[in-house]
Amino acid sequence: MEKRARVLIDCEDAKGLVYQISKVFYDRGLNIDNNREFVDKEYGRFFMRTVVTGIFETEELLTELKSVVPEDAHIRVIEPKAKKIILLATRESHALGDILVRHADGELDATIECVIANHDTLETLVNRFDIPFVHISAEGLSREAHEAKVMECIDRYAFDYMVLAKYMRILTPRFVEAYEKKIINIHHSFLPAFIGANPYKQAYERGVKIIGATAHFVTNDLDEGPIIAQDVIPVNHRFEWRDMQRAGRDVEKIVLSRALSLVLHDRVFVNGNKTVIF
Amino acid sequence: MEKRARVLIDCEDAKGLVYQISKVFYDRGLNIDNNREFVDKEYGRFFMRTVVTGIFETEELLTELKSVVPEDAHIRVIEPKAKKIILLATRESHALGDILVRHADGELDATIECVIANHDTLETLVNRFDIPFVHISAEGLSREAHEAKVMECIDRYAFDYMVLAKYMRILTPRFVEAYEKKIINIHHSFLPAFIGANPYKQAYERGVKIIGATAHFVTNDLDEGPIIAQDVIPVNHRFEWRDMQRAGRDVEKIVLSRALSLVLHDRVFVNGNKTVIF
Amino acid sequence: MEKRARVLIDCEDAKGLVYQISKVFYDRGLNIDNNREFVDKEYGRFFMRTVVTGIFETEELLTELKSVVPEDAHIRVIEPKAKKIILLATRESHALGDILVRHADGELDATIECVIANHDTLETLVNRFDIPFVHISAEGLSREAHEAKVMECIDRYAFDYMVLAKYMRILTPRFVEAYEKKIINIHHSFLPAFIGANPYKQAYERGVKIIGATAHFVTNDLDEGPIIAQDVIPVNHRFEWRDMQRAGRDVEKIVLSRALSLVLHDRVFVNGNKTVIF
Amino acid sequence: MEKRARVLIDCEDAKGLVYQISKVFYDRGLNIDNNREFVDKEYGRFFMRTVVTGIFETEELLTELKSVVPEDAHIRVIEPKAKKIILLATRESHALGDILVRHADGELDATIECVIANHDTLETLVNRFDIPFVHISAEGLSREAHEAKVMECIDRYAFDYMVLAKYMRILTPRFVEAYEKKIINIHHSFLPAFIGANPYKQAYERGVKIIGATAHFVTNDLDEGPIIAQDVIPVNHRFEWRDMQRAGRDVEKIVLSRALSLVLHDRVFVNGNKTVIF
Repeated sequence: MEKRARVLIDCEDAKGLVYQISKVFYDRGLNIDNNREFVDKEYGRFFMRTVVTGIFETEELLTELKSVVPEDAHIRVIEPKAKKIILLATRESHALGDILVRHADGELDATIECVIANHDTLETLVNRFDIPFVHISAEGLSREAHEAKVMECIDRYAFDYMVLAKYMRILTPRFVEAYEKKIINIHHSFLPAFIGANPYKQAYERGVKIIGATAHFVTNDLDEGPIIAQDVIPVNHRFEWRDMQRAGRDVEKIVLSRALSLVLHDRVFVNGNKTVIF
Repeated sequence: MEKRARVLIDCEDAKGLVYQISKVFYDRGLNIDNNREFVDKEYGRFFMRTVVTGIFETEELLTELKSVVPEDAHIRVIEPKAKKIILLATRESHALGDILVRHADGELDATIECVIANHDTLETLVNRFDIPFVHISAEGLSREAHEAKVMECIDRYAFDYMVLAKYMRILTPRFVEAYEKKIINIHHSFLPAFIGANPYKQAYERGVKIIGATAHFVTNDLDEGPIIAQDVIPVNHRFEWRDMQRAGRDVEKIVLSRALSLVLHDRVFVNGNKTVIF
Repeated sequence: MEKRARVLIDCEDAKGLVYQISKVFYDRGLNIDNNREFVDKEYGRFFMRTVVTGIFETEELLTELKSVVPEDAHIRVIEPKAKKIILLATRESHALGDILVRHADGELDATIECVIANHDTLETLVNRFDIPFVHISAEGLSREAHEAKVMECIDRYAFDYMVLAKYMRILTPRFVEAYEKKIINIHHSFLPAFIGANPYKQAYERGVKIIGATAHFVTNDLDEGPIIAQDVIPVNHRFEWRDMQRAGRDVEKIVLSRALSLVLHDRVFVNGNKTVIF
Repeated sequence: MEKRARVLIDCEDAKGLVYQISKVFYDRGLNIDNNREFVDKEYGRFFMRTVVTGIFETEELLTELKSVVPEDAHIRVIEPKAKKIILLATRESHALGDILVRHADGELDATIECVIANHDTLETLVNRFDIPFVHISAEGLSREAHEAKVMECIDRYAFDYMVLAKYMRILTPRFVEAYEKKIINIHHSFLPAFIGANPYKQAYERGVKIIGATAHFVTNDLDEGPIIAQDVIPVNHRFEWRDMQRAGRDVEKIVLSRALSLVLHDRVFVNGNKTVIF
């Protein structure tokens, strides 16, 4: 029976890769619905995302592709289906709410497994959407102890991506490594950014004319993982810092949802500390 | 001797095109430096732009590519060199000046053959840059008679693109057909747009909060040719129509220069009344 | 007891208005927390929005202000409190959902009286937020008959503004006049716009590079009322019309919420067919 | 004879300022063509910009205004005329060229006294516009010695503003203090920014999706003076760092020209390390 798959390949660049890979599709009689490549000349890396339709066995296709690309190649053959996501939040509802509405609307190509929060502020909102809400308070717990409880909860789910929808806790290296390339965060600024507490207050004090937001994968460099999406919103001298925060929230939620959509559609490759977005 | 070329192909979509084309490159030992394809599912059209390096004869490569693609294919093998452009203007200097400065700076990958204008207002500016300025007044002439003189002048030059840098004359179908897909215009609005005289005054009267500009190829549908680039600039109630015009000029010149750069780098395919931009 | 009010005045322009009005505040010992004026030179109209604090009787202040401004003046002294709004929707949830989340979050300075829809698609979503949902089907009814039922429902509420959150019905002049300057709509385009059914399909067919949205007051000129807010989002040739629609929805919801916030904070004056936004 | 002036006042906030100031205008029979105020609640500072027309002696008006505002007030009564500016540059032409074209076009409300550069690269360009070009090489000179020569040249001119149109030299505190609030710079980034050499390379390595530019007054905090204007331009993974630089130049020149225009129209107040823009 005819089916459809997204084929994602990234590997060391080499001569003839497009030819070799497209030959595999051609020989099997597969249709290419969509195809994009990119070569990072500096790093000498090749990236390709192809949507194919036709009759094929996923495992066989994978094996055949492996035989024509360099050994270090990372190949994925993904049959489109709703991915599973987990949301982490704290007290702010704008980014979370935006994802919940999109989910309820069927716009998000994902199922939300649960929302985990270190405060119970958002419980009512999450319950409105019949999504499990897990409150794991950090009160009286060390960072490690709290995180261990969060990880215990997370590990009950098979999930594809974890979204930090304004989760205001610093993650330990252990946590980040456990879910490498799976954690998406929204950062309240451009990067480089105002560092430290209350960035909007800093932005206000600096008198900026533009507020930005950055969605990125989380790595152990604080707020420094590969950037997926960024956008801005204009502000002016009449904005008090709370107005800046409000403007910032609008751009944060749109940027996070845009990044999430890109990731759910397998359009994002991580390339060192950067991304390739198809 | 090794050389470099941009290969542009657009044709009816067919199975195996990426494979067949990349096979030609592979068999000749050419390197693919950059490759982008797009298939317009609705029109069933295939577009591909590949930058190759290696040892090849342009004519031979062309012949070989022709043998593997559908008959209707439009194939170009372009060895990068400065293209030749002609500029048409009237009285406003912003778009023209921006191109002249980029040209003087060596930023524009083109040589400006001449500037033709129906007024002499811009003569001093153009002369500052040692570019031939041809004043062809329309006074006392019919549209056809004036255009005939302009075409006579244009036809003295072998040129790749003609840029209407705020050329405020309506072109006849004869003119447009003579230089099909070669004329780039900057339009003082988004499309669809305020129709008729003084669009900024109309925008002002309408109380818009954003002013846009559109760069497009000229066809015989007035202001309706394939769009190459668009952008906007925010305005508010304090803007009188002249302020809107000033804001509009900033966005016009940037959008026109961006479109020109895309065209000069062979990044633009015309696809019916749309464009594919790589 | 000290209180706070927004004073909004618009009238024919005249000499000394700022002086006369500020004299009223000064003589009563009121503090000016915030003050903005604008004179539309073309129409000869004066607009002023002042936030005052101090001890005053609203009626007395109003009377005194009336005595110093031209007869045609429209003066409002508004003590800040949550305004009441009614939402009208059809089937799409993005704009409605965004307002519901902001409301649940306490971010919206308003209470939502009810959501009225001509389909029942959104009932579940609205119920999640414990907001009354009224389904008034248009099936088998003439436009006038359906509208009469909607108006009957609306008129049960004392409300300040009615928000058309993607309400896909054409309103009759009778309806528009009944709620003059109270109806806010989000339009799926810039204005001027693609006219007729499925504007995103038209935008797709036109090959635009930018999608916009416009929030405006509704008047009897279809989609032509005073513009409150506009914004855009970039698109490209890879967007099918459904992708354009998706991008358009993001910009629609943000623009509508921004317009609603401006209106709820009494920052918007209607000036003929334009707005003054403070 | 009737004339026109911009009145700019900034002072400690106090009750009745709008009243007291507008009373002065009223009593003298002056018309207010345009009026904007802003109170910075945090700093307790009042800012007002009024355009008045009528019959008045500038000195008398100034004296009278002084008598009604706090002692620390900074009052300017400015009769509109072309301001004088000096441009400093190094080797890049984009920002300089944009200002030269606007100047030649009469769009800039200023006369350019001269262009000073530490390299002679831009001499031809500047000469095209019949503007004096002064080449002051830094070769073999200490920073102080070079700067002394530059200051000697500058001080030959009576000028209102100095524009650093990509002047790539670090200024000493002595220089900055000598021309306090008169130096406008364009910064190749948002602030906070990539620090150190080649910010575009850093932006490229960081994989940003947006490039920004900031125009600001120069103070002795490196790149940290009051921001006048900011804007951005989107980039993606296909941009090599030179492409980012090219995109950055477009946004730099537009932002610098926008800031310069605001300053030349006396629309900018410095407020501590921030600006108020009317």
